[in-house]
Amino acid sequence: MNTNYQKYTEKLVKITDVNKAIAILGWDQEINMPEGGAAIRAQQIATLSGIAHELFTDHSMGDLLNELTNDPSLTPEQANNVAHSKQEFDKKTHLPASFVQKLSHSTSEGFQAWLAARKKNDFAVFAPFLEKMVNLKRQQANLLGFEKQPYNALLDEFEPNLQVAQLEVLFADVRQKISGLLAKIAAKPVPKNDFMFRFYAHQKQWDFGISLLKQIGYDFTYGRQDISTHPFTTDLGMQDVRVTTRINEHNFHEMTWSTLHEGGHGLYEQGLLPQNYGLPSGAYLSLSMHEAQSRLYENNVGRSKAFWQYNFPILQKIFPDNLQKISAEQFYAAANIVQPGFIRTSADEISYHFHIMIRYEIEKALIEGNLAVKDVPDIWNSLYKKYLNLTVKNDLEGCLQDVHWSHGLFGYFPTYSLGSFYAAQIFRAAEKAMPQLATEIQQGSLLGLNKWLRENIYQYGKKYSIDELCKKITGEELNLSAFIDYAEKKYTDLYNL
Amino acid sequence: MNTNYQKYTEKLVKITDVNKAIAILGWDQEINMPEGGAAIRAQQIATLSGIAHELFTDHSMGDLLNELTNDPSLTPEQANNVAHSKQEFDKKTHLPASFVQKLSHSTSEGFQAWLAARKKNDFAVFAPFLEKMVNLKRQQANLLGFEKQPYNALLDEFEPNLQVAQLEVLFADVRQKISGLLAKIAAKPVPKNDFMFRFYAHQKQWDFGISLLKQIGYDFTYGRQDISTHPFTTDLGMQDVRVTTRINEHNFHEMTWSTLHEGGHGLYEQGLLPQNYGLPSGAYLSLSMHEAQSRLYENNVGRSKAFWQYNFPILQKIFPDNLQKISAEQFYAAANIVQPGFIRTSADEISYHFHIMIRYEIEKALIEGNLAVKDVPDIWNSLYKKYLNLTVKNDLEGCLQDVHWSHGLFGYFPTYSLGSFYAAQIFRAAEKAMPQLATEIQQGSLLGLNKWLRENIYQYGKKYSIDELCKKITGEELNLSAFIDYAEKKYTDLYNL
Repeated sequence: MNTNYQKYTEKLVKITDVNKAIAILGWDQEINMPEGGAAIRAQQIATLSGIAHELFTDHSMGDLLNELTNDPSLTPEQANNVAHSKQEFDKKTHLPASFVQKLSHSTSEGFQAWLAARKKNDFAVFAPFLEKMVNLKRQQANLLGFEKQPYNALLDEFEPNLQVAQLEVLFADVRQKISGLLAKIAAKPVPKNDFMFRFYAHQKQWDFGISLLKQIGYDFTYGRQDISTHPFTTDLGMQDVRVTTRINEHNFHEMTWSTLHEGGHGLYEQGLLPQNYGLPSGAYLSLSMHEAQSRLYENNVGRSKAFWQYNFPILQKIFPDNLQKISAEQFYAAANIVQPGFIRTSADEISYHFHIMIRYEIEKALIEGNLAVKDVPDIWNSLYKKYLNLTVKNDLEGCLQDVHWSHGLFGYFPTYSLGSFYAAQIFRAAEKAMPQLATEIQQGSLLGLNKWLRENIYQYGKKYSIDELCKKITGEELNLSAFIDYAEKKYTDLYNL
Repeated sequence: MNTNYQKYTEKLVKITDVNKAIAILGWDQEINMPEGGAAIRAQQIATLSGIAHELFTDHSMGDLLNELTNDPSLTPEQANNVAHSKQEFDKKTHLPASFVQKLSHSTSEGFQAWLAARKKNDFAVFAPFLEKMVNLKRQQANLLGFEKQPYNALLDEFEPNLQVAQLEVLFADVRQKISGLLAKIAAKPVPKNDFMFRFYAHQKQWDFGISLLKQIGYDFTYGRQDISTHPFTTDLGMQDVRVTTRINEHNFHEMTWSTLHEGGHGLYEQGLLPQNYGLPSGAYLSLSMHEAQSRLYENNVGRSKAFWQYNFPILQKIFPDNLQKISAEQFYAAANIVQPGFIRTSADEISYHFHIMIRYEIEKALIEGNLAVKDVPDIWNSLYKKYLNLTVKNDLEGCLQDVHWSHGLFGYFPTYSLGSFYAAQIFRAAEKAMPQLATEIQQGSLLGLNKWLRENIYQYGKKYSIDELCKKITGEELNLSAFIDYAEKKYTDLYNL
């Protein structure tokens, strides 16, 4: 093998080992750490992050990447890995250390202020810190460079090459085509769902969740599940991928669909190729593509009629007192109630995208200088009225609900919606490629789907751009038609529209 | 503060953060890691170990330590820290990287051969690898340098300044004074202990173990307990100290005294001062001193009459079926049965030291070239006959029972015995300093003892040498009189000698 490429691989593996140590320090913090360990843990994570950053941004890495970038002897796969690393190197070295420190400091400060503002239910407490953060993010956009508008630079941080122009088209479709569906559903009676809130014993829920993970193909030889306050997925390498869930004994939704959601994330990580550990080809493509996997299992599979035709009779036997008088159809309907609410994280899969669109509009306007921070609550509340016909009564259920902006995550929200849109388009392609898929799901047999996703998505890591991969799988660029078809068909049937 | 000293502190804290990340990777490996994660985990640990080694042996560290060693402006505490680090630096840089690699390779190989030899119950399978290891350890002694004999260099690796001369005196006392006690006990009937092997439910044992940890002062705000195959203690900093135990539902010994043993280790780590994190003054003094803390709680406290006067009635209420017809005295006697056996790890606190002495004699002879590897089984078996009157029937219960030599741990075993001897001497000092101690233990009140140990041992880290600290606390150097007094008094009473 090319000696330089070998060196480059070794460096990346070393850095990745450090990053995985950071990952386990973080995982343990949520799962096992005793309360008193918090301060020293934060320091340990910061130290290791510093080491990983030093190793990656070292001038020897820069020299190596420059040589490799102009090395004609590399295979296309090798060249693609190098190009990704070069991009990342340039991004990381474009931000001076002093700026990164300032940002990190403002993030800690901002997060504390956000917590305090939530305690007082008062956006004004958070406003000056948000102001500072918006200014820093504008500076960041300038340091990174951008086409057309600064917000594009921030989008690119989370979803490479994503631009405002593409989002405008997608959200125009949300406004025009999904609004109508929402209105039609709102005119219909809400399906019965009181049985979802009966007593579901912890251990039985846990066992059922584990069986769901096994059903979708999550491999416990290379993973485990734990309980945490907020469900999340961590990978310590493709051969140690961990998911978490939470269990509410009086709300059957929480465990079930968070398990399927994190399970989808977990399948993606378990499907990356171990021989590519450390390399871009061994890392997930992008946040949107990751979210697509979780949404696909949470919604396209996990809220489908076929899935519950198989699983509901099993569930009925586990919880006879709660469910013996309920039919699979009633359960399916209760799993798919569409009802706009104030809180994004508990939104149904249709109204969800209005929550995202509102945040997108606001953060874009903040970064572009078209909105003053002090006006955020007003614009927030007026957009909730306009799109979801809801009157926000306070900031807690309004613009203080999400942690993202306090952490400096501007440009992140859109990847959530993109995840659902990609999921719908990918799932339609899977259905086309596997005419037997619906029948298999009805029989509790989901390994075929996992195999297809492994072959068509997971194994590639960052080999293709998301646009290339989307076209390769679905024949077309990302667009809303699959999502709209899926939603119209499903909810027309469910609500007799 | 002195700028150089500040730099030195920062470097050590950084290295310690990396070492704590290694510690959590290791802890998780035993407690949580899915089976399939083993290979990548081993690599991650190796990478981080390499980084910690590089950071510590970097020439900038060497320069700094040289400057600080001759810096008259340091406080005595600072100078002591620097001296310790300088010693460690010299040791680490005396071994060339090629030698360290060879040793590491032979350790992996040796461990696999040891496993294979155990499977076949045949020392000959392990012999060539042990031969190689003995040669490497001799080389290591030469590279490190030594006084009088090479084995001293290896002892020093685990217990700074420990020399053969000191061990000869101690083990002569073991042979001369403890042998007699053993013989007298052997002539007496074995106390009843069948009730220790009745069914003790897992959860009830777990809860009782947690209550014991709390009783001795282990602080769960800064720690936790888990289950593992072999009990161990890990610290991720003084504010996150973790112990493990194991539970056998048909043997009440295992959980109880392993919990007290690891609890003792845990108390030491929790008692180091957080402001000294990373510095020698914030690290445990030595292996023997660490073992002294675990033995003190396992034996001097945990097998004492006073301890069970308080705890046995509690235990009786938890397990009435097993214990209602048993008296506290009977339980105390069963907890202290002395009966020589083949296996070191399940030995009683008296015959234990013959196991150690035999290993010490053999490894010393191997290193000094007075014994050929092929003769190890014969000499092993003849020493077991001589000291414990046992006829070893095979290598599994003989010279293949311990993993240490396969890992290259020559010079480690003596620290186990030293731990017990220090424990007895320290406990006697604690009894002198706190005349109320026995009464407190009888009342389940052990926080006074913890406070005394914190003040007299834990807080100091490596501030004093073990000889200095032993004299400071007990008024004399390490000797066997406290251990012999303790053993004679206890077993004369227990066995009516």
